[in-house]
Amino acid sequence: MSWQSWLEQQADERDEAGLTRRLLPRTAADPTTDLAGNDYLGLAGHPDVRRAAADAALAWGAGSAASRLVTGTLELHETLEQELAAYLGQPAALVLSTGYHANLAVVTALADRSCRVLSDAHIHASLVDGVRLSRARLTVVPHSDVAAVRDGLVAAREAGERTLVLAESVYSVLGDAAPLTDLAALCEEHGALLVVDEAHGLGVHGPGLVHRLGLAGLPHVVVTATLSKSLGSQGGAVLGPTGVREHLVNRARPFIFDTGLAPAPTGSALAALRLLRERPELAARVHERVRELADLLGVVPPDGAVLSIPMPSPAAAVAAQAAALDAGVRVGCFRPPSVPDGISRLRVTASAGVPDADWQRAVEVLRVVVKDHQ
Amino acid sequence: MSWQSWLEQQADERDEAGLTRRLLPRTAADPTTDLAGNDYLGLAGHPDVRRAAADAALAWGAGSAASRLVTGTLELHETLEQELAAYLGQPAALVLSTGYHANLAVVTALADRSCRVLSDAHIHASLVDGVRLSRARLTVVPHSDVAAVRDGLVAAREAGERTLVLAESVYSVLGDAAPLTDLAALCEEHGALLVVDEAHGLGVHGPGLVHRLGLAGLPHVVVTATLSKSLGSQGGAVLGPTGVREHLVNRARPFIFDTGLAPAPTGSALAALRLLRERPELAARVHERVRELADLLGVVPPDGAVLSIPMPSPAAAVAAQAAALDAGVRVGCFRPPSVPDGISRLRVTASAGVPDADWQRAVEVLRVVVKDHQ
Ligand SMILES: Cc1ncc(COP(=O)(O)O)c(C=O)c1O
Ligand SMILES: Cc1ncc(COP(=O)(O)O)c(C=O)c1O
Repeated sequence: MSWQSWLEQQADERDEAGLTRRLLPRTAADPTTDLAGNDYLGLAGHPDVRRAAADAALAWGAGSAASRLVTGTLELHETLEQELAAYLGQPAALVLSTGYHANLAVVTALADRSCRVLSDAHIHASLVDGVRLSRARLTVVPHSDVAAVRDGLVAAREAGERTLVLAESVYSVLGDAAPLTDLAALCEEHGALLVVDEAHGLGVHGPGLVHRLGLAGLPHVVVTATLSKSLGSQGGAVLGPTGVREHLVNRARPFIFDTGLAPAPTGSALAALRLLRERPELAARVHERVRELADLLGVVPPDGAVLSIPMPSPAAAVAAQAAALDAGVRVGCFRPPSVPDGISRLRVTASAGVPDADWQRAVEVLRVVVKDHQ
Repeated sequence: MSWQSWLEQQADERDEAGLTRRLLPRTAADPTTDLAGNDYLGLAGHPDVRRAAADAALAWGAGSAASRLVTGTLELHETLEQELAAYLGQPAALVLSTGYHANLAVVTALADRSCRVLSDAHIHASLVDGVRLSRARLTVVPHSDVAAVRDGLVAAREAGERTLVLAESVYSVLGDAAPLTDLAALCEEHGALLVVDEAHGLGVHGPGLVHRLGLAGLPHVVVTATLSKSLGSQGGAVLGPTGVREHLVNRARPFIFDTGLAPAPTGSALAALRLLRERPELAARVHERVRELADLLGVVPPDGAVLSIPMPSPAAAVAAQAAALDAGVRVGCFRPPSVPDGISRLRVTASAGVPDADWQRAVEVLRVVVKDHQ
């Protein structure tokens, strides 16, 4: 089949299934209340954070102009790495251009085809892609199933395989926390390395769940993070033992063969990190809002900032999302095939960045919209 | 073997082979003349480009706060996409967070395990990783060997495989141009799709070599670009038929599951693009400098902005690089295993951004240093 016909066929199949996605640009002065994004603490728009991005671009230039290994490492990168490591309680941090790069880097640099990866069924696409690239032997473990991880570790040990266990601290779609204490203990017992993606945990839980649970700085726990969610910027980081950082600098292709993170997002992530450190009330406000909305809608409060509201059908979810938008409130919508369990959902972020009055109005809109579509 | 021992063993092996890499941060007021980076036109530091990064962060926030498919698409992204497409003579463009993401996206969204990929031996790690992720059947073709590509296309056609051919317009290490006209004709003849990475062609050749050769806008040619080299910012783009853009929006995981490019690099890439369009003398200065330095050092002038100077040994290359740095000039150094042909080299960027007096001094430094180490 020609490329042209193949592309057309693919487009037709999407259209028929009602799955075609379109990009809807927003304006700088978008008047809707945004409860769909991942700016959990409202720091992307915070005046100090914007200003820090601007100042970094003015001082350091618009780009870092080379790979980190050539001349693309700025003192600004090192400052961010040191402060990130200190805040998360880790010996060392390495900053990459995106959270996606961070996940690709850690898995591909550590695992090879002789390794075993035990991966939670709900982990993010970037970790899945990392495993595929590494060519490691993959076992997908049922979601947060500690016993299945134990079985996998026992089998891997018998086979003499170096083993990575992959989890998120707070899962992105359902907002539930991983059983990190149990996973870390199992990894220690079986000589495996636990990789925890704190994309949705950092900020919402201050320095993250790994730190909160006393697991930061352990030699068998590595953390990845994004600078694009609670830190309101762009970029990613890998945090853990110094030896892991050095290994990545020398071996991780998504680090080595990529231009260093631009000065502006580096500077703004640093400013956001400092705000986060100094203002624990930001995270507290997220948790209050999560509880308020969960109570009102009768759903279980999640461990992160994202409420996941089951809807009776994909059509109902789409209609509810549209009705909320009509009323000035933007929420997310997950339908098959992008949900792990086939259940369509609204995804609502209880962002601390939304002003109180807007939040109260949004809560009322959601109460009505959800009732009308359930 | 435990993870700790494995990491130590890997580090020891690197140290013994003399291959350990370290990050050397630079300061904002670094006094050395930088001929090692990829800021070919000097736009990363241009006042208008810095200012545009700052203004975008102030107007739009420090991050785009969500996936492009959720609420992370800004009007600023669309403006950049439209102006990039117009300048490169392509129907459509899609902006991603890095050039690495752009290459991963295009290959993984288009190729699957039933496809054949014919990949030039010198292509970039990000395209190689894209092929690995796609699980397509891979044939690595000798560098710029048109006859080998033809043979590969004939074989693929007989096997009924949809086929991608991967090339760079100007190759990163040796600075040579690909035989794009021949490759495009072969792809048309055999129903294959040609993917050309313009990372080192855009800017140095104005709208890129694909455009210069009259190949822009053809239905069987897709272009990828980075915003991190001549455009002095961060990010990547895929350019080509509208159907390809739509397909990527719907299917490319490194686009869908990633936060949209931050406002600052989006804004600065747009400003750099406009400067590039209005000031063809920037590219002309690069070519003059390339010729001047190539003549002086007795090497063949490359097709891009990067001179590759063969050195007699890895040790000589490292010593020459250190001597140049002592004299205030930073150049790159390639040694095995990061060279395609085993020959160690200095890598010198003839950037238009270096002021005339610094450039003249740097040329003299390089003349002496290269003579002393050859
Ligand atoms: C769990 C998780 N990890 C990693 C990423 C990738 O981070 P980034 O958008 O910074 O590339 C995301 C979302 O984008 C995510 O949800
Ligand atoms: C040929 C080529 N393609 C792609 C890339 C990746 O671009 P980026 O650094 O913007 O991720 C690079 C270098 O970094 C490159 O040299």
